[in-house]
Amino acid sequence: MSILEKIQSSDDVKKLSEEELEPLCAELRAFLVEHVSKTGGHLASNLGTVELTLALHRVYDTKTDRLVFDVGHQSYIHKILTGRRDRFSTLRQYGGLSGFPKPREAEDDAFIAGHASNSVSVALGMAKARSLSHQDYDVVAVIGDGALTGGLAYEGLTAAAASGESMVIVLNDNNMSIDPNVGGMARLLQRMRVRPGYFNFKRWYRELFSHMPPLYRLNHSVKEWVKSQVLPDNMLSAIGLDYMGPVDGHDVKQLECVLRWAKEMKRPVLVHVLTQKGKGYPYAEEHPELYHGVGPFDPETGVMKSSCKCFSEVFGESLCEFASASDKIVAITAAMASGTGLDRFAVQFPERFVDAGIAEGHATAFAAGLAKQGLLPVFAVYSSFLQRGFDMLIHDVSLLGLHVVFGVDRAGIVGSDGETHHGVFDLSYLHTVPGMQILCPASFRELHDQLQRALFALHGPVAIRYPRGGEGEYKASSCEDEQLLREGADLTLLCCGTMVNEALAAARILEEKGISVELVKLNRIASDLFPLALASLQKTRRMLMAEEVCATGCVGELLLQQAAEQGITLKAAKLLNLGEGIVAHGTRTELLRDHGLDAASIADAAERLCAEGKQ
Amino acid sequence: MSILEKIQSSDDVKKLSEEELEPLCAELRAFLVEHVSKTGGHLASNLGTVELTLALHRVYDTKTDRLVFDVGHQSYIHKILTGRRDRFSTLRQYGGLSGFPKPREAEDDAFIAGHASNSVSVALGMAKARSLSHQDYDVVAVIGDGALTGGLAYEGLTAAAASGESMVIVLNDNNMSIDPNVGGMARLLQRMRVRPGYFNFKRWYRELFSHMPPLYRLNHSVKEWVKSQVLPDNMLSAIGLDYMGPVDGHDVKQLECVLRWAKEMKRPVLVHVLTQKGKGYPYAEEHPELYHGVGPFDPETGVMKSSCKCFSEVFGESLCEFASASDKIVAITAAMASGTGLDRFAVQFPERFVDAGIAEGHATAFAAGLAKQGLLPVFAVYSSFLQRGFDMLIHDVSLLGLHVVFGVDRAGIVGSDGETHHGVFDLSYLHTVPGMQILCPASFRELHDQLQRALFALHGPVAIRYPRGGEGEYKASSCEDEQLLREGADLTLLCCGTMVNEALAAARILEEKGISVELVKLNRIASDLFPLALASLQKTRRMLMAEEVCATGCVGELLLQQAAEQGITLKAAKLLNLGEGIVAHGTRTELLRDHGLDAASIADAAERLCAEGKQ
Repeated sequence: MSILEKIQSSDDVKKLSEEELEPLCAELRAFLVEHVSKTGGHLASNLGTVELTLALHRVYDTKTDRLVFDVGHQSYIHKILTGRRDRFSTLRQYGGLSGFPKPREAEDDAFIAGHASNSVSVALGMAKARSLSHQDYDVVAVIGDGALTGGLAYEGLTAAAASGESMVIVLNDNNMSIDPNVGGMARLLQRMRVRPGYFNFKRWYRELFSHMPPLYRLNHSVKEWVKSQVLPDNMLSAIGLDYMGPVDGHDVKQLECVLRWAKEMKRPVLVHVLTQKGKGYPYAEEHPELYHGVGPFDPETGVMKSSCKCFSEVFGESLCEFASASDKIVAITAAMASGTGLDRFAVQFPERFVDAGIAEGHATAFAAGLAKQGLLPVFAVYSSFLQRGFDMLIHDVSLLGLHVVFGVDRAGIVGSDGETHHGVFDLSYLHTVPGMQILCPASFRELHDQLQRALFALHGPVAIRYPRGGEGEYKASSCEDEQLLREGADLTLLCCGTMVNEALAAARILEEKGISVELVKLNRIASDLFPLALASLQKTRRMLMAEEVCATGCVGELLLQQAAEQGITLKAAKLLNLGEGIVAHGTRTELLRDHGLDAASIADAAERLCAEGKQ
Repeated sequence: MSILEKIQSSDDVKKLSEEELEPLCAELRAFLVEHVSKTGGHLASNLGTVELTLALHRVYDTKTDRLVFDVGHQSYIHKILTGRRDRFSTLRQYGGLSGFPKPREAEDDAFIAGHASNSVSVALGMAKARSLSHQDYDVVAVIGDGALTGGLAYEGLTAAAASGESMVIVLNDNNMSIDPNVGGMARLLQRMRVRPGYFNFKRWYRELFSHMPPLYRLNHSVKEWVKSQVLPDNMLSAIGLDYMGPVDGHDVKQLECVLRWAKEMKRPVLVHVLTQKGKGYPYAEEHPELYHGVGPFDPETGVMKSSCKCFSEVFGESLCEFASASDKIVAITAAMASGTGLDRFAVQFPERFVDAGIAEGHATAFAAGLAKQGLLPVFAVYSSFLQRGFDMLIHDVSLLGLHVVFGVDRAGIVGSDGETHHGVFDLSYLHTVPGMQILCPASFRELHDQLQRALFALHGPVAIRYPRGGEGEYKASSCEDEQLLREGADLTLLCCGTMVNEALAAARILEEKGISVELVKLNRIASDLFPLALASLQKTRRMLMAEEVCATGCVGELLLQQAAEQGITLKAAKLLNLGEGIVAHGTRTELLRDHGLDAASIADAAERLCAEGKQ
């Protein structure tokens, strides 16, 4: 029986002898590689936090203590250690374990995670709640150096420092977020990393006082003085946090010792831990960025199953093409150069490429500054992460009507990353932004052509939204606002973007059943009317719209309003969409079916609508 | 002729002799007090930045150089100096000067302002645009210490530091935002403030080298070394910004000298300026928070015209009442304790009151942490500023269905603060948040009762939105989801919140014209159906809805969708609202009339609708 097989909970981790720790780490790494090579998932960051997670579980009890992960894709070891080892082969699969912490999955998961930089704020809330309720559990936030580039982390850190609440913030510093870190904070951490053995000093110092407990407790001011002599000021201590580190993140015993000390301090303490992303799996050590988020791969050779061409790639290639023609184009990413397909642009036009770090708000306001001075900024960003820039979209971009182009990647269902990552709110929040025009390409060629339109033919803020993954049967291209794809008499079926593929298939199913569908594809959503769609509704008087977005603010709602205000009375209308917008993880196919958005479900809904509205 | 009267532009400021500067400052202060005592506006912060603004105009040319104000309510002196003195009596009045920088008003206003902490990001965008276009203007951001509590500022500062772009960031440090500063950053600035005469040293140092220009330029590394010996590390220099200061913000000559030096450095430099809010007007010096944003007052005595009771006050009082009964309630503000009426709560329940600084994202995530651990957080925040927390509303609060109550103050038209401050997007973005329930009280008593419902009868995220100012003729209270206020046959008129007052008046006008209106008030907006409203529409088959929000995502759109999906065919429908949501400044009365939302316009629209839909 392996050591790993003995572990069902935090308690079992605490019972391990010191000698069992190293072999357990090796077992955990082998387990990770074996499983993630099959399911896909976040590999490198989990390989890097094996020892840290073990140490956390030796010091804290995650059933009552609150361990708040930031982003949370580094929570696999935590899941394995807290009774979810047997289900680990279901990771990120439909109905299986989530790839992120999830309180509904286990009480050991203190909070949801997925978007970066919130952990300190959430943990501070929990610490404050603990104090106000006179309870005595501990609170720990684990945040990566990448997440530290987000302003929300800074808001949380300064508030934590000022609060005096007992809590520990573990800075997991692997010297890179998904793409290597940018900005002043990275530089600061770099400087700290090369400092002399502060940690060893503290060990000595602690041993010295540990035999005389009263003195150890009473000498806080001495401790402060000593620290000030040994530890140069840094930003983290400047804002009032007790800073401990840097600590070797691959030494469980050292980690355990420091964490216990930090816990005892009963104040806001930051423990700076140095880890190596990909640790223990040579391919991932060498190319941590490639093994950040992976699909299935061969564990022996590290070779990944090649993936097909995707919209992000086409976006990046097209943007390079247009940037060759216009030197006004500046490309911006928020720490996702490869994810958004901008890596090529970064190489080809380094001067005009900006990685803003995980700081979508800043990236948006920065783009506004560029646009105000006559350049043509393009911010490529995942739909779900652009939510962070909502206020800046309105205040900085829209009020002045600035021409900023947003490449809204991962729009719609994203698959196995699940509920925190689906891009299902964008249509709603983008359409709320005054003057925003939203383009919805459905094929690679259409993305290319509509991006060209967004850059050179439109004015003011423009968002061009496209999904994760590749194109379907629709491979044509149009830059019209609306397209009539199929004439019919019984019902108008409407769609945007790649949902056209399901709609086309549905129309064929319906044709076989003798129902004649008029299929309209909407390519540009703005505050204008949809004349073609309205004319079709006037004609068929039955409306069905299928959308891969949440119900609120969907295009169908807008169309129904326009129809009503134009005096078009419908016999029947139905909007198919993702409802409230909370969508589980799984493949897009599974999730579309679940929400009645696959071709068969659309056809069913159309059939019912035709029966219903028979007058 | 006074000195002030000679000044029409930046150029004239540059021509002034050194001797004229002090008397000019006195003239400017007198001018400010005289005018703002009549128009109302932001007084204390402008009194504090007279010398700073003069110095900026002596060093920079705001026609070509880009001067980016943060928040921007401290731009009055800038406006007075750049050709807008004669129109200053129209400040914040309908059709008059904006109380914030506005590029459409003058090219001297480099960018829009209103929401905090964006200036460094915007300025960096401009600086980058300048460099990429091979132009040579200068870029300056002026940011207050209050705005520095926002994470966006930190994102901007770290990015600026890393960019190496030539730009100057002026930190206007008056040791308070609107309410006294909170958090670790405030503590850091406090520490810097008491440092020995670093500035004088630099003067000496500069004079030493100024007679030998080549050496002065070549000795950068020496300078760095000297600085490192004299200036203790602080966060701002730690992230890579060149830090200069602190400088006396009421000494024009010193300011001018430092700004010139900063400008010459051609790198990202932070100039730390100490100013006194309210400087030169004794009443404002003594109570800067009272004179931050003021209505008209008597300039001789400082006595303000008393204002009526407002919704914010009722909110604060009610919350105190409920907090006496439940010790789970925690109140949170984002630097607006008095503005949101929470000042009383802060005194009565100091343990359970949290001022998060200008950090709405953090405040939202923090509230989520509190709620997850069983407390009952109430975040009172201005509608327009909560836009900053949009992502956290979805990710941190909604996905776990946490019971957090948002007191959404300043919902709807706010009046003279204008387009950056109107709370006209909230219905749309709040309704997008999964599971969010939105309550819309219309009277003081209703706010009290609906807050009670939000706290103790509802679950999950709840927003309760109420306007700036006081109540109207509607003084009743209901906690039903919908209210039938008036029966009628010809048309259903729908409204939420205080728009009911216009609707009631419109119904009376229509009654005189023989049109019988059924008036329905919607009190709770969620994803449920509106049965009462739908029944009324089924009956009258004409729908008119008046809303003080932007068109996208308005309740009328939702109702039209429900009507269509329920098979209710309408003879006529019209939605009255604020269109795209960009609304100028002026009184609420003027702006409602402008947008066709006053009683007379609503009645007109109803009449047209009845004529139109006659069948």
